[in-house]
Amino acid sequence: METRKIYMDYAATTPIKKEVVEAMLPYLNEEFGNPSSVHSFGRSVKNAITEARATIAKAINAKPEDIFFTGGGSEADNMAIKGIAFAYKDKGNHIITSKIEHHAVLHACEYLEKHHGFEVTYLDVDEYGIVKMEDLKNAIKDTTILITVMYANNEIGSVQPIREIAQIAKEKKVFFHTDAVQALGNIEIDVQELGVDLMAITAHKIYGPKGIGALYMRKGIKLHPLIHGGAQERRKRAGTENVAGIMAFAKAVELATSNIDEHIKKTTQLRDKLINSVMERIPHTILNGHPTKRLSGNANFCFKFIEGEAILLSLDIVGIAGSSGSACTSGSLDPSHVLMAIGLPHEIAHGSLRLSIGDMTREEDIEYVVGHLEKIVERLRGMSPLYDKFMKGEKAHV
Amino acid sequence: METRKIYMDYAATTPIKKEVVEAMLPYLNEEFGNPSSVHSFGRSVKNAITEARATIAKAINAKPEDIFFTGGGSEADNMAIKGIAFAYKDKGNHIITSKIEHHAVLHACEYLEKHHGFEVTYLDVDEYGIVKMEDLKNAIKDTTILITVMYANNEIGSVQPIREIAQIAKEKKVFFHTDAVQALGNIEIDVQELGVDLMAITAHKIYGPKGIGALYMRKGIKLHPLIHGGAQERRKRAGTENVAGIMAFAKAVELATSNIDEHIKKTTQLRDKLINSVMERIPHTILNGHPTKRLSGNANFCFKFIEGEAILLSLDIVGIAGSSGSACTSGSLDPSHVLMAIGLPHEIAHGSLRLSIGDMTREEDIEYVVGHLEKIVERLRGMSPLYDKFMKGEKAHV
Repeated sequence: METRKIYMDYAATTPIKKEVVEAMLPYLNEEFGNPSSVHSFGRSVKNAITEARATIAKAINAKPEDIFFTGGGSEADNMAIKGIAFAYKDKGNHIITSKIEHHAVLHACEYLEKHHGFEVTYLDVDEYGIVKMEDLKNAIKDTTILITVMYANNEIGSVQPIREIAQIAKEKKVFFHTDAVQALGNIEIDVQELGVDLMAITAHKIYGPKGIGALYMRKGIKLHPLIHGGAQERRKRAGTENVAGIMAFAKAVELATSNIDEHIKKTTQLRDKLINSVMERIPHTILNGHPTKRLSGNANFCFKFIEGEAILLSLDIVGIAGSSGSACTSGSLDPSHVLMAIGLPHEIAHGSLRLSIGDMTREEDIEYVVGHLEKIVERLRGMSPLYDKFMKGEKAHV
Repeated sequence: METRKIYMDYAATTPIKKEVVEAMLPYLNEEFGNPSSVHSFGRSVKNAITEARATIAKAINAKPEDIFFTGGGSEADNMAIKGIAFAYKDKGNHIITSKIEHHAVLHACEYLEKHHGFEVTYLDVDEYGIVKMEDLKNAIKDTTILITVMYANNEIGSVQPIREIAQIAKEKKVFFHTDAVQALGNIEIDVQELGVDLMAITAHKIYGPKGIGALYMRKGIKLHPLIHGGAQERRKRAGTENVAGIMAFAKAVELATSNIDEHIKKTTQLRDKLINSVMERIPHTILNGHPTKRLSGNANFCFKFIEGEAILLSLDIVGIAGSSGSACTSGSLDPSHVLMAIGLPHEIAHGSLRLSIGDMTREEDIEYVVGHLEKIVERLRGMSPLYDKFMKGEKAHV
């Protein structure tokens, strides 16, 4: 079999589209002014930011003044969670989140709990990684000020019932933040219709560059900034704007949202082909997450008796890029907190592989990847004492 | 007189050098992997970040592991000040800063004071904008945990006695942070020799892009992160790295520091020519800041009887970009807090103009700018009731 380079880690980050890089270049070259400067060098850049903000706002049906640029999704999550917590601590000190959030949310909540006197409820999820509405309702107290539940999970792709959560939050007069980093560009988002109060998004998951994201925040909400200083971003996030990044983000959002039906259709087809082939051809395999209520580009498997890291390294040798857990925690020896939360035993959670597909994935890539994966799993199981023991047990039953 | 475009606002931001853009491009195109990913797409990017970190560390004589990338200078200042404050609040709640700091420092301190139970001393400065060592010594108490004084002022260019401050801080076992955003690339910086504990720097003041900066933090110091989440930046600053920005920053630092003697020599000559011409040719003008202990590229004047904004707009019409106050506060009607701190009366502080020069400034630009400025000041004074009154008073004295 020939060796190619096949990227199946779109959930970690995406290649940047040519049009996106082209949208940045003028702002890395001639248009270098500081948007806060009053002279012509600054004014033209300021106008460009205004347009970019409007483009992003329009794509999610928000008002431009409700978009606050940040250095990425993690900053946006921290800005939302800590910002609301500190601004409303006189009202209450209780926050509700789920056990399968991204670490930007989990660690921000844990920090508030450990160092600033907040109390956090971490909701369980069902076997598919979905938060249960009854649990959420029961968790809300008089002191609850914020609910933060992600739109779609980065590891297993589960999509949460965001409308329902927003409705419950609204009834109880609690703010609702959602980490929509994985959802943007993969699910059509309308913040008005969803009813969310705050939402984190980022460029590098939708074919834009790393280091630029945004927080959507509905008008009328107070927030203590993470970064104080100049008057940028309506005094909510100080610092000279990442101008080229903002231009890129706007172009990436425009491309990702204008074409979203086709993107979803294509990636769903490819994902289903991938999932079906793997499940048919490789025995003792678990599909993690919901069979259909999942991101169109996400597949996540556990191959029993072997380790995820070993699979990844073997795939890497034949030029295939996948992931075990999320990119942010790779290098860690702990099994994924998401897989533990959906009830997988420790030893099985260790054997997980995420393959995530996107706009550059072709149909023949699927065949190539599954072919290699089948051989790799077979080979690794051949060396696995666990598998050996299992097979002997099976034979004994015959 | 012909109309050109002359940029004299390098202190607000700088054009990006071609070599810097070239250093970014591979990371906006083929090298798109997430540095936290274990596959080949991620590994090569991770290695590139390691090299970039080492380049920046070397330029300021730091260890690579003491460099933490941020979204810019303001984030680095906030990370240092709030990070130290929260991590050491059991030890004490007192912070010392100066009245002429950048708003990223001042507003971070004010926030801690207003909302988190900290006490802040804002030191006066002398008429040149220099902190007095006796005042500093007297301000230190048992509860003092942090001194934060900028290396060089962004408006009037005053350079602080950083070594002395670091020495005092060390003797009293208090951490010392300096905002070196304006100093980097304009003053040779050696963190070991200076003795600073923390230092904020940014790329867009040294011919790099906006949206990328760093905090230097000496080993052994604890800090509560501003942004919790993934394990990036040794768990001190979560979020997928701004890879292209980091590459650009390293290249910009390399260019700015390898050539610094020549840069200082050239900009000092041009600055002195600018200052001398203005002071000779335009009467009733004050040079703000110290005549020699100032950044090589900084000139800041008050033209009595007229407003800074009017001068700026008139300069803009003939294609000259300057600044009144700092870019971060433009649009504000308040006079500069820096000019007030050096003792200028309210009505004179309103008439300030900062002209900052840099690598692309040519000798003939100085002549062009001074020629226009002379005419503009004369014309504006001709319309000024204050000037009219003053002149009548002068005549009455004759």
